[in-house]
Amino acid sequence: MEKLRRNDRMSAMMKILSDAPNRIFTLSSFCEMFGTAKSTMSEDIDLLREMVKHFHLGELETVTGAAGGVRYLSKVDRQEARQYIEGLCEQLSGTARVLPCGYIYDADILCAPESVDRLGAILATEYYDAAPDFVLTMETKGIPVAFATARNLGVPLVIARRFSKVYEGSAVYIDYMSGSSGSLETMSLSRRAVKEGQKCLIVDDFLKGGGTAKGMTELMREFKVEVVGMAFILATTTPVKKRVTGAKSLMTLEFSGEEQENAVVRPADWLMN
Amino acid sequence: MEKLRRNDRMSAMMKILSDAPNRIFTLSSFCEMFGTAKSTMSEDIDLLREMVKHFHLGELETVTGAAGGVRYLSKVDRQEARQYIEGLCEQLSGTARVLPCGYIYDADILCAPESVDRLGAILATEYYDAAPDFVLTMETKGIPVAFATARNLGVPLVIARRFSKVYEGSAVYIDYMSGSSGSLETMSLSRRAVKEGQKCLIVDDFLKGGGTAKGMTELMREFKVEVVGMAFILATTTPVKKRVTGAKSLMTLEFSGEEQENAVVRPADWLMN
Repeated sequence: MEKLRRNDRMSAMMKILSDAPNRIFTLSSFCEMFGTAKSTMSEDIDLLREMVKHFHLGELETVTGAAGGVRYLSKVDRQEARQYIEGLCEQLSGTARVLPCGYIYDADILCAPESVDRLGAILATEYYDAAPDFVLTMETKGIPVAFATARNLGVPLVIARRFSKVYEGSAVYIDYMSGSSGSLETMSLSRRAVKEGQKCLIVDDFLKGGGTAKGMTELMREFKVEVVGMAFILATTTPVKKRVTGAKSLMTLEFSGEEQENAVVRPADWLMN
Repeated sequence: MEKLRRNDRMSAMMKILSDAPNRIFTLSSFCEMFGTAKSTMSEDIDLLREMVKHFHLGELETVTGAAGGVRYLSKVDRQEARQYIEGLCEQLSGTARVLPCGYIYDADILCAPESVDRLGAILATEYYDAAPDFVLTMETKGIPVAFATARNLGVPLVIARRFSKVYEGSAVYIDYMSGSSGSLETMSLSRRAVKEGQKCLIVDDFLKGGGTAKGMTELMREFKVEVVGMAFILATTTPVKKRVTGAKSLMTLEFSGEEQENAVVRPADWLMN
């Protein structure tokens, strides 16, 4: 490559910025990387911002001040989010995925890169403003989506464990009541995992009674961490009253038919506005 | 945006291609998206390929034939992989992270977006040629890295479960002997998760005795799935003889000091070539 052109700079920047969503890159770091003047870099970034907007590829934000620079936000606009979720609802609805006891098979969707990335971006879009310091999930099924959300928010994931046989050093244990079964369960988190005064976003795959979610909020209270949001992929319509308030889900699940053999999955109301 | 320029096309393509590693995009899909002729698109892609190479941002590959097009591979070259792993070894070595019974605290590194993405890309680099159909991991700690590896390989993640209380429909259960403790354990996988005749890459965070890894290979045998590779983030130097062969790890762990209070973490030999 003889001389770097604007083409090269813009596409390299796009890659670097979008690989690290919500992380601020200083103008000077790019100037150094490409050997260009600040004024040229500013123009490159303006053009990139316009392109990203045009193709609905997220958002490029200029941050002013001493720690200023530019960052990429993987924002998905409401209409696109709705369309995507509607497609998922279609995939999940019907009889083919129904499991006993009010569950549906969705492990494939929760583990496929396309859907996980997309769900993570949609959830992150809702919580950029809340600026959590980390995302908390409870093992196991929600981990990929929670990780994708954390990645898009530019923060670490923290995993609460269900069992004590873990090798993470001294831990805080809490007992909680499972919302759906009413049985007593335990969850634990390593003492090193989070710091007092941090802000946390809870992300999980499934909300039914809300017992696990409530357990996570109690766990965070033990660590003196503020819960700034709770997001779920799928929430059952019953029980209507969950053990937690303020939870946001992307889809709702209910069953119809004589033997509850038909799953009806719909986009959540807030997505329709 | 009045008229799309090469700048815009190249940076948009970079974003779209690198968001879906190892997925083939046809030239015509880009032509349609940008409203350009095939010859222009080919030029754009040639320039992009050069840029990606120049900045060590992976690799752009042209695939010929009927199902042809262009795809992005998140390849990390050996030297960069080594440097990155050396940095991690430094972070993990010493007394600060040592836990009882031959473990070290690495949950933070296994859950932070930067390290997870990088480890996933380094592992994927090693297994593009093996072309697995999915990545298999055993819950819990390795899930984010296994997901990142799967994402870079453009295939789904499949999670084997340790406990029976899961809502994934009919499942195959196997008993296996834990390599380190010698106790009998159970792992399960939903019948729907994989298909006969597929190829699988096993990815997990920790290899000690190799019992869990062996369990995963046996589980795959039950499903008539071929294991094309086994990759681990960290492997203990003892026992030297693991219950599986052909495993590749990024780092090795041993302990020194009178009370084994000092962790010595080193890059694996194969990375040094």
